[in-house]
Amino acid sequence: MARTEIADIGKQAALDRLFEGSGFTNEPTIGLRQSGGCCTAQKLLLEGCDFDLVYTPIKHLGYKAVLCVLGEIYASLRQPAALSVNLGLSKRFCFEDVAALWEGMLAACREHGVKQVGLDMGPSVNGLAIALSACGTQKKSVIGKLPATKNMDLICLSGHVGAAYMGLHVLEREKVAFTGTGEQPDLAPYKAVLASYLSPEIKPGTVSRFVEADVLPSRGYFLTRGLGEAILRLVRDTGLGAKIYLEKIPISSQTFAMAEEIGMDVVTAAMNGGDDYKFVFTLPIEKHDVIRKDFQDFEVIGHMAQPDVGAVLVTPEGAELPIHAQGY
Amino acid sequence: MARTEIADIGKQAALDRLFEGSGFTNEPTIGLRQSGGCCTAQKLLLEGCDFDLVYTPIKHLGYKAVLCVLGEIYASLRQPAALSVNLGLSKRFCFEDVAALWEGMLAACREHGVKQVGLDMGPSVNGLAIALSACGTQKKSVIGKLPATKNMDLICLSGHVGAAYMGLHVLEREKVAFTGTGEQPDLAPYKAVLASYLSPEIKPGTVSRFVEADVLPSRGYFLTRGLGEAILRLVRDTGLGAKIYLEKIPISSQTFAMAEEIGMDVVTAAMNGGDDYKFVFTLPIEKHDVIRKDFQDFEVIGHMAQPDVGAVLVTPEGAELPIHAQGY
Repeated sequence: MARTEIADIGKQAALDRLFEGSGFTNEPTIGLRQSGGCCTAQKLLLEGCDFDLVYTPIKHLGYKAVLCVLGEIYASLRQPAALSVNLGLSKRFCFEDVAALWEGMLAACREHGVKQVGLDMGPSVNGLAIALSACGTQKKSVIGKLPATKNMDLICLSGHVGAAYMGLHVLEREKVAFTGTGEQPDLAPYKAVLASYLSPEIKPGTVSRFVEADVLPSRGYFLTRGLGEAILRLVRDTGLGAKIYLEKIPISSQTFAMAEEIGMDVVTAAMNGGDDYKFVFTLPIEKHDVIRKDFQDFEVIGHMAQPDVGAVLVTPEGAELPIHAQGY
Repeated sequence: MARTEIADIGKQAALDRLFEGSGFTNEPTIGLRQSGGCCTAQKLLLEGCDFDLVYTPIKHLGYKAVLCVLGEIYASLRQPAALSVNLGLSKRFCFEDVAALWEGMLAACREHGVKQVGLDMGPSVNGLAIALSACGTQKKSVIGKLPATKNMDLICLSGHVGAAYMGLHVLEREKVAFTGTGEQPDLAPYKAVLASYLSPEIKPGTVSRFVEADVLPSRGYFLTRGLGEAILRLVRDTGLGAKIYLEKIPISSQTFAMAEEIGMDVVTAAMNGGDDYKFVFTLPIEKHDVIRKDFQDFEVIGHMAQPDVGAVLVTPEGAELPIHAQGY
C-alpha cells in the first residue's frame, strides 16, 4: 500500500488534501452564532490505553472517536453543531493512515449534522493521540424548560449494555492467541459483540425526538465507562438516590452466552464494562405512559429515590446492593 | 517530597481534592447561555514534543498551557469564559504533580476571568498529554461590527518576538551540558529570554480594550508557531497579500545578544522561533492615529497588500523576500 510521509508533503498540504472535496472547510476555531445555549464537550483518546490499532481498523476508530464526544453533547440535550480535532502523530503514521481516520470522522459528522469542523495535527513521541471537542446548541426555549430531577423520576436506558465489553474481551483474547500461534482467528460467532465494540452507533434523533414529543429529560448521561459509573454520577449530580432493578437491565443473548463462555459474571459486564455508547436519561414519572408508548426502544431500568438510598442495584429477590465504579 | 498515587486515592477523589477550595466546580461539559456568538478553540500538548519537564516547572506548564488556548480565544476577538482540560497521565505522575499543574491552570483562569472549568484525567502509556478546549463569548453587536480585512489594513504586533525561542535554546543547551557534566548552569544572564519561554503573559484586556476604544480589528492571530506562520495564515485566510517591514519587527536586546552568542540569524528567530504568545491584529488604516496614540504597546509592522504580492518581508534596502513557514 502507498505510504506518504506527512513531513514530505508538509502539514498544510496534508490538511488541504484531507478537506478536498469533503464539503467542509477547515476552521481553526469553531464559532457558533446561535442565540440559544451552547455547550462544549471534550475527549482525549490515547493509543495503548483507549484504543488498540492491532484490532481496530483506523477508519472505525475515527468514526467511534467522534461519536464518543458527540454522545456527551446529546447527553447534555443539545444537537451537535461543530467539531474540532487535534491529532498527535508518531512517525509510524503516514498520510494514508490519517486520511482513513479522517474519513471515519467525517462520516460521523455527516450523519449527525455537524456543520463546522476543524482539524490540526502535530508530532507525538509515542503512538497516536486524538483530542476532540464538540459544540452543541439548543433552543433557549428547550433549555429553559428542562425539568428538575425529582424523587421517583424514571431512569431510562437507550439499549442493551455489556456487549461492547464482551467484544473487547474477544479481541484481546484473539490478539494474544494470534501473537502466540500466528493463526487467524474465526470471529464469525462473535459478530454482534464485536460490532458493539468496533462500530457503535448513536441515533441522530436522540435529542430531537424528546423535543418533538415534548417529553424533556431532566438529565442525560452517555455511557462510556459503564452503567454503574453513570448512575453514580447521576446520584452525585442530583444529591438524590437511585434504584436500578437488575432484571430490567437489557443484556443481549450473545452477551449472556459470551459471559458463560469466559466464566464472567454478566452483571459485572453490564454494570462496569464500558464502551456501551448508550444513554441514560431521567424522565418525569408523569410521562410514564408516553414513554411506554412512543419510546419503546428505551427501557425503564429504575427510578430516582430519597438521598439516603444512595445508588443501589435491586436484585430479583429484593436485595439492595450498593453500586460501585471500576478503577481509574 | 510526598508522593500520592492517583490509583490509590481514586480518580474521583483526586478530582474532588483538586477543586476543593478553588472557588470552581468541576463541570464535565461546559455550557454557555450567552446570547452573543460563542467560539471554541482546542490545543493538544504532548510531552517530549510540545514541552520538556526536565526544565519546565510543572506549575508553569499548567499556566502556559491555559494561555496557549486562551490566546486563540482572544485572537478570535472573544473574551474567555470556559475551559475544559483532559489529562493523560503515565504512572510517573502522582497526585502532587497534577495538583501543581492544576494550580498553574487555575491561576491563568482567575487572571483571565474564566468562570467555568472542567477537568478529567485518564491513563497514558508514555508521559503527559494535555488536551485543552476553551470557549469564548462576545456581544453580538461587536461580532456583527468586525470590519472586513482590506488592502492597506495595518498589521500590528503586540510585543517583541524571538525571545521565547532563545529561551528554549538556552534551556536545551544547558540540559545537554548538565547531562554531560552534572554541573548546575548559571542561568542569571538569560533571565529575560527564559521568562519569555517559561512564563509568557497575556494581558487580560487584550480584546476588551479594542471594544472600549471602538477600534475593532478585522482579524487576529495568536503567535505560537512563529510570526512567519501567522502572516502566511493571514494571507491565506483573506486572499490578500501582506508586506512586513523587517526593521519594524520588535526584537529585544537580549534576543539580539543571544543570537550573536549562538551564531544564529536573529531574523530567523523572530520570524520562525515560535512560542511568542504575542498577537497579530489587522486594523483599518483609518484608525492609524488612534492606534499610534492609544495602543502604543502595539507595533505597526506592515500592511495588507494586493493578492499578487503574497507574503513578503521587506528589508531596509527595499528587497522583498518571500515569507516561509517552518516544517511540520
